[in-house]
Amino acid sequence: MNTKPNENVPSNAVGFIGLGNMGHAMARNLLAARLPVKIWNRTAAKGDDLVATGAVRASGIADMAGCDIVITMVSDDAALCQTLFGGGLLDAMKPGAVHVSMSTISVALAEQLSKEHERRGVALVCAPVMGRPDAAVAAKLFILAAGADAAIDRCQPMFDAMGQRTFRLGVEPKSAVVVKLSVNFLIAALIESLSEASVLVTKHGVSMHTLVDLLTSTLFSAPVYKTYGAIVADQRYRPAGFPTPLGLKDMSLVLDAARGANAPMPLGSLIRDHLIAAMALGYADADWSSLGAVVAHNAGIR
Amino acid sequence: MNTKPNENVPSNAVGFIGLGNMGHAMARNLLAARLPVKIWNRTAAKGDDLVATGAVRASGIADMAGCDIVITMVSDDAALCQTLFGGGLLDAMKPGAVHVSMSTISVALAEQLSKEHERRGVALVCAPVMGRPDAAVAAKLFILAAGADAAIDRCQPMFDAMGQRTFRLGVEPKSAVVVKLSVNFLIAALIESLSEASVLVTKHGVSMHTLVDLLTSTLFSAPVYKTYGAIVADQRYRPAGFPTPLGLKDMSLVLDAARGANAPMPLGSLIRDHLIAAMALGYADADWSSLGAVVAHNAGIR
Amino acid sequence: MNTKPNENVPSNAVGFIGLGNMGHAMARNLLAARLPVKIWNRTAAKGDDLVATGAVRASGIADMAGCDIVITMVSDDAALCQTLFGGGLLDAMKPGAVHVSMSTISVALAEQLSKEHERRGVALVCAPVMGRPDAAVAAKLFILAAGADAAIDRCQPMFDAMGQRTFRLGVEPKSAVVVKLSVNFLIAALIESLSEASVLVTKHGVSMHTLVDLLTSTLFSAPVYKTYGAIVADQRYRPAGFPTPLGLKDMSLVLDAARGANAPMPLGSLIRDHLIAAMALGYADADWSSLGAVVAHNAGIR
Amino acid sequence: MNTKPNENVPSNAVGFIGLGNMGHAMARNLLAARLPVKIWNRTAAKGDDLVATGAVRASGIADMAGCDIVITMVSDDAALCQTLFGGGLLDAMKPGAVHVSMSTISVALAEQLSKEHERRGVALVCAPVMGRPDAAVAAKLFILAAGADAAIDRCQPMFDAMGQRTFRLGVEPKSAVVVKLSVNFLIAALIESLSEASVLVTKHGVSMHTLVDLLTSTLFSAPVYKTYGAIVADQRYRPAGFPTPLGLKDMSLVLDAARGANAPMPLGSLIRDHLIAAMALGYADADWSSLGAVVAHNAGIR
Repeated sequence: MNTKPNENVPSNAVGFIGLGNMGHAMARNLLAARLPVKIWNRTAAKGDDLVATGAVRASGIADMAGCDIVITMVSDDAALCQTLFGGGLLDAMKPGAVHVSMSTISVALAEQLSKEHERRGVALVCAPVMGRPDAAVAAKLFILAAGADAAIDRCQPMFDAMGQRTFRLGVEPKSAVVVKLSVNFLIAALIESLSEASVLVTKHGVSMHTLVDLLTSTLFSAPVYKTYGAIVADQRYRPAGFPTPLGLKDMSLVLDAARGANAPMPLGSLIRDHLIAAMALGYADADWSSLGAVVAHNAGIR
Repeated sequence: MNTKPNENVPSNAVGFIGLGNMGHAMARNLLAARLPVKIWNRTAAKGDDLVATGAVRASGIADMAGCDIVITMVSDDAALCQTLFGGGLLDAMKPGAVHVSMSTISVALAEQLSKEHERRGVALVCAPVMGRPDAAVAAKLFILAAGADAAIDRCQPMFDAMGQRTFRLGVEPKSAVVVKLSVNFLIAALIESLSEASVLVTKHGVSMHTLVDLLTSTLFSAPVYKTYGAIVADQRYRPAGFPTPLGLKDMSLVLDAARGANAPMPLGSLIRDHLIAAMALGYADADWSSLGAVVAHNAGIR
Repeated sequence: MNTKPNENVPSNAVGFIGLGNMGHAMARNLLAARLPVKIWNRTAAKGDDLVATGAVRASGIADMAGCDIVITMVSDDAALCQTLFGGGLLDAMKPGAVHVSMSTISVALAEQLSKEHERRGVALVCAPVMGRPDAAVAAKLFILAAGADAAIDRCQPMFDAMGQRTFRLGVEPKSAVVVKLSVNFLIAALIESLSEASVLVTKHGVSMHTLVDLLTSTLFSAPVYKTYGAIVADQRYRPAGFPTPLGLKDMSLVLDAARGANAPMPLGSLIRDHLIAAMALGYADADWSSLGAVVAHNAGIR
Repeated sequence: MNTKPNENVPSNAVGFIGLGNMGHAMARNLLAARLPVKIWNRTAAKGDDLVATGAVRASGIADMAGCDIVITMVSDDAALCQTLFGGGLLDAMKPGAVHVSMSTISVALAEQLSKEHERRGVALVCAPVMGRPDAAVAAKLFILAAGADAAIDRCQPMFDAMGQRTFRLGVEPKSAVVVKLSVNFLIAALIESLSEASVLVTKHGVSMHTLVDLLTSTLFSAPVYKTYGAIVADQRYRPAGFPTPLGLKDMSLVLDAARGANAPMPLGSLIRDHLIAAMALGYADADWSSLGAVVAHNAGIR
């Protein structure tokens, strides 16, 4: 990897804010693609190795002012609002610049930001991702992007550096958020359904592995059934790929978005209740597939 | 196809009772494989074409007495009990013969029959199938078989004639029924989850087709998501591939089996409630994916 | 109590079949009201003390042939069918006689019996009761009666001897069953709601007793809130006033009746699922208010 | 009523902020009890008649600075935060003064305010009320109060002027909020259960009035069953005593409080889903008992 590429930081560096597990790997892949990157993170040390491989460290959030594109990959609505408003990012960005929000945020916030950005002439692209940290490291993320076509076009080289494929989901930025939340809902629904099927077959003397083999050999031959089928069959809820509290956060975002649109989602409610039970039953540190533990518990299986 | 192969009915003809949509196609495939077949159906005319291609018509249920293997493919528990006990099949069968029950029946009945058959020295193989009538015609069924290994071995040539693959699910006959019901439950759960995701994205301005394309291009690349994703996206609930009342019947069998094992299945209950609503809202003649119509209704979408 | 009143059994004796906890107390109250009673029970010894106080023991179910009115108070649908058809009661009864079914049976069976009785010229009165065994002993039952007015008129002296009040619910016998099941559903719903409120307040540091006192002092000043509020607040699920398996049986009858009418009852389903969980979690010998234990369990309270 | 009593406003006037339907009636009753009252409302005209009968109008929220006791009766969390922080009430109040929050707010806000008030030496009493506007007019509210005993003692004369009874629910202010939300949850649960019972009996040919008469004559002889039993039986959801959107708001507060304590409330979720459906089906202007309309709708009853 190049060691001293950015002594003169180009004015067109990509800003990147938020260097958690996901963000760090994503920023590293931007660098690996020889894109100039300017980073900022609340805990600065998280970016040391990136600086060592060519990233420029911003002196503060407002120091992203010169960037044409600023990516945020922060933990939740509150962190994003703090970055944009508290930290002053939005007012610092120049008209015509693009803010790419890659976190999973609420639909309501995406709606609000559409207006705030438009008022300031800053383009908003919402681009949450599908994939766990290992997919981020391998640049194998699926990127779900929504916003003005021209704005997404400008982001495409970055998306190509971080992901295996970009899906364009419309011109309303919130569309990408809605789709991302729907995907997570569908995964959770699948885990819940496998969990209930598991207690049914197990209590009648059939191994869940037998059922999973059958499923993935026939109609349900999708990666997600293989992954979660094995987890549920083995009751292996640790280590956490996607921890229960994050799952609960996302299901709450799903239900908030649904309520905002007057759309009842009773299965969403059921999943949320089971995730709350998982928290109560000691699975706060486990994977959100601990839905299976809750279902087993209620069937008297420990 | 051979026209006059069975003038002398071999004593080892396969008995086949129940010539509905599924059963008729299955019996035809047995004949096509040059297996001797003796048929019986409440409405005799349903078998006329099979007789024309070589099947022997039994004079009554008890006339299956000489068959080494008798397959039943009738509509429900009541019809099977009527055949076995009212019609006298079970008492007529000779010790050492095999009864292959290919209907979707209740787990409780499978448990009861295990005892009744054992008492009479008749082997019971439960072998419900996955696949709709077109798969039955094409001999592409998946056959889920459970029972004594030796008994299944004897049925294997027939299964090969009717299906694309046989899964052996254990020595307890009820195991196949439990697995079959679980598969149907998982399909229904998938329809419900797609339906709820559909109202969420639709009400936020995203086409359900967009979501389905994304799903089937990524983690959910299974036939069942393609099939039902398209149905839900198009709200195309007619014609019925698997009618709402049959779906409701199967979900009731799922919940009965779960209750019998003290296993709560709240998602199963939710699906059953929605299928009942589908009946009430005018979808009795539609496909069980009219779950999607119920979910849409409750979101004010008509 | 009179000791030798019935030496000559009058032909118009009231037949009484089923001497469990409830039935025994009810038959005793008929005798106490100086009504001639002819009894039968599968376990004859249960009626010995009644014979000692004047009841006549029938030699068999068919020996009720001469009675103008026969009351059945048996455990469930199967027992009632066994009595009526297996035991031959219905064919033995004379045209114009009245069969009073006081058990909680399924609505479907009530519908079927309406036809069977009518065909034989026997009047059917369904008259399930509200009240636990102590209310039966004290002749304080509420009697929910439905059937032809003239038939109920003939039963009124018996009802007056067994209960504190009779509610006439229509001429269709099943109406009384539907109402009885609805009442039990409403009680279960109330227990579930109190159980959920209990974990909410308890986890936020408020005693459930405080909430119950408030409720029963204001809008919810009904006996049923006092009774179950205290049970839930104390988590005192034993001894069983109405055992979990009977509660589960009744909720299943509710859901069967609802399905029969294409009426989804999602709260009914939720309660049934929680009762199944109660069975799985070790409350089969406890009161059906162990719904509260299930709710507490899922909140991590043991 | 006295016409010119407060020419010299006493320094100990009670501050009252929020003159909606409820607040206006409550402030009027304070005046009727000859308590000195200083009012403020966003729309000043709402207080004109109160000024005419002796209330003093504050020049702004901060003008409540001199009051020993300030009551807030505003619409929701946002309005209360705006009053306390945006409007500067909390910083304006003198140490030792009492803020009485009578709105139904979130448990999380009550927890946060406990800390904010304590830091400033202002006592916080949460005192939400039970009762509709007509009860507020008649001074027949039930007042649910929690906070330091000495602080509640100082409020007691005001509570006596506004309500028929005060319940003291502990020293943690949030306790009153938790109890108030629980009461509303229990009322909603009761409406849901009556609605489901209603479709069951109606579809089987029994009038819901018949069931309600039975209930309120026996175990369920509480005002709340009479009120809502009649509404559900008549399907009379307008005019709105407590509108659907407010019911939905409160059920969301219930579920937020439950989630905050890791307590699943599946019946709470079911009710919330049905209220969302009521919004979607056109009952936004109706009473929250339009839960009954949703249940009927799903049973095919229009």
